[in-house]
Amino acid sequence: MQNIPYYQEAFTKYLNAFTTDKNPQTLYNPIHYILNLGGKRLRPVLTLIAADIFNSDYKKALDAALSIEVFHNFSLVHDDIMDDAPLRRGHQTVHEKWNINTGILSGDAMLILAYQLFEKYDPEIFQALARLFSKTALEVCEGQQYDIDFETREDVSIPEYLKMIEYKTAVLVGAAMQMGAIVAKASEEDQNKIYDFGRFLGIAFQLQDDYLDAFGDPKTFGKQVGGDIIENKKTYLYIKSIEFSAEEDRIQLQHLFSLSPSDPKDKIEAVKEAFTTSGAAEATRQEIVNYTNMAFAVLETLDISEENKVALKLFGEQLMNREV
Amino acid sequence: MQNIPYYQEAFTKYLNAFTTDKNPQTLYNPIHYILNLGGKRLRPVLTLIAADIFNSDYKKALDAALSIEVFHNFSLVHDDIMDDAPLRRGHQTVHEKWNINTGILSGDAMLILAYQLFEKYDPEIFQALARLFSKTALEVCEGQQYDIDFETREDVSIPEYLKMIEYKTAVLVGAAMQMGAIVAKASEEDQNKIYDFGRFLGIAFQLQDDYLDAFGDPKTFGKQVGGDIIENKKTYLYIKSIEFSAEEDRIQLQHLFSLSPSDPKDKIEAVKEAFTTSGAAEATRQEIVNYTNMAFAVLETLDISEENKVALKLFGEQLMNREV
Repeated sequence: MQNIPYYQEAFTKYLNAFTTDKNPQTLYNPIHYILNLGGKRLRPVLTLIAADIFNSDYKKALDAALSIEVFHNFSLVHDDIMDDAPLRRGHQTVHEKWNINTGILSGDAMLILAYQLFEKYDPEIFQALARLFSKTALEVCEGQQYDIDFETREDVSIPEYLKMIEYKTAVLVGAAMQMGAIVAKASEEDQNKIYDFGRFLGIAFQLQDDYLDAFGDPKTFGKQVGGDIIENKKTYLYIKSIEFSAEEDRIQLQHLFSLSPSDPKDKIEAVKEAFTTSGAAEATRQEIVNYTNMAFAVLETLDISEENKVALKLFGEQLMNREV
Repeated sequence: MQNIPYYQEAFTKYLNAFTTDKNPQTLYNPIHYILNLGGKRLRPVLTLIAADIFNSDYKKALDAALSIEVFHNFSLVHDDIMDDAPLRRGHQTVHEKWNINTGILSGDAMLILAYQLFEKYDPEIFQALARLFSKTALEVCEGQQYDIDFETREDVSIPEYLKMIEYKTAVLVGAAMQMGAIVAKASEEDQNKIYDFGRFLGIAFQLQDDYLDAFGDPKTFGKQVGGDIIENKKTYLYIKSIEFSAEEDRIQLQHLFSLSPSDPKDKIEAVKEAFTTSGAAEATRQEIVNYTNMAFAVLETLDISEENKVALKLFGEQLMNREV
């Protein structure tokens, strides 16, 4: 396995060649726009890595990797409409730059293009990729729907929340890796294991995202620290705090989550205090460690070289330390 | 080949069994709702017919037929959002009954479900179906985009208009038939021919829809006669009128298409008069005959029984006489 920048560069080169000048441009220009906004391309890189560590040539997995990236960007375009988000990676979202109809239709075309990218593979590989893709894509839709449903529910449980982030985010990471394994014709057992490695790491990463949104360093986190608290978002921290708190503290926290003050500074501090004193902050850190350890444990059982296990574990650690 | 109601009943029965109780219901209820609003189910029926006439069992094509119907309804859900349409088949559209976000997300899930319905087929058949499906689905998106683009263009040509209705409507009819042929393992030549039969008939049907929107019988047409004229829609009739008219008449027609009177009666009469005197109405009738004849000509060359050719031609005639 090569280093991450190597795969990132190879993927970016391949992505740029994908940018064709198909008509109507009103449909395809927004697709090129969103695909070229940048990003770390971690999902497709994972596909290429998986192909390499299962003794194939990563180049054979470039179409599968591109499919993952096109699908991911499809979901961003449609989610940004649903969230009414004006910005994505510091630039206008597609529906802001064009309009909602363009966002819907270009997104639809991207979902279809993602399937088309499997067409160069042999029928058995094609079917395995498309089957995994459909299952995963449907789960991503279900995860998005759970996320919407949870906004208006007061009784979301920890298992429900974990399922939501698993579907909305983590299964695509797992599928990205499994696709590399499928292309490399790895055994079904190894396919499932590398899927679980990605899935566990994806859950750990998303839980850490929740944690850093409250307790992260504003200089390095990338997003506005306290954003979830401002939006009264019921994250793992919040649900766990409600679960751990006695009645008085619970009512106080629920009250704080009914407010939207113009200056949110005091509210953020009070909520963070509640997250800490209730033990929810510590419980979240522990859950992040649990899922990271599950990912590393399954990694140990993979039928790959020791060298690649070490490299993959290092990548996981860098990811969790936000160094990639 | 059986009669149309036979296939309609078999398909409806299969569709009803598809209605599962998957979670989250907030995602799947809108899908069940739109799929059960009724309709003549002509596209999936064509898939079943094609399987039968190429000497297979129509039952083997039920999943492919259902995929076509799920995709068709996906496109209705997203198009209705884009057109801001309140009603579909006399009932509330999905985004009216729920909201736009539900319409987007449930539509996305339907597009994925349409691909999943191919999974029971063997890898070679699966790949052939998915490949045709992706090509067709992308063309439907392109057709919808051309339709949107044409609203704000004054220089749409007849070939451009024909390509738009071909992509937006006719290719799906062709694909519906080819999918039945793929499942029946018909020769590639016959697959392409049955695709063309459906495509030509689809274009003829859509041109006739344009024609009847102006000149149809209000009692039997189903939609509001004059609707396209009220909306200043640049149909085949309009583009051909502009092409055929001398400057004075052309300016007059363009002027009429800049108006939106509260009582459209006089405008409708004046536009219909222009369509007739310019020769555009007659040219449209001729083009409908041309495409119908092309469909029937390709039918003659198919490697199927004479009996099935007669039955398929009868079906085409009934369709063009709006008797099915």
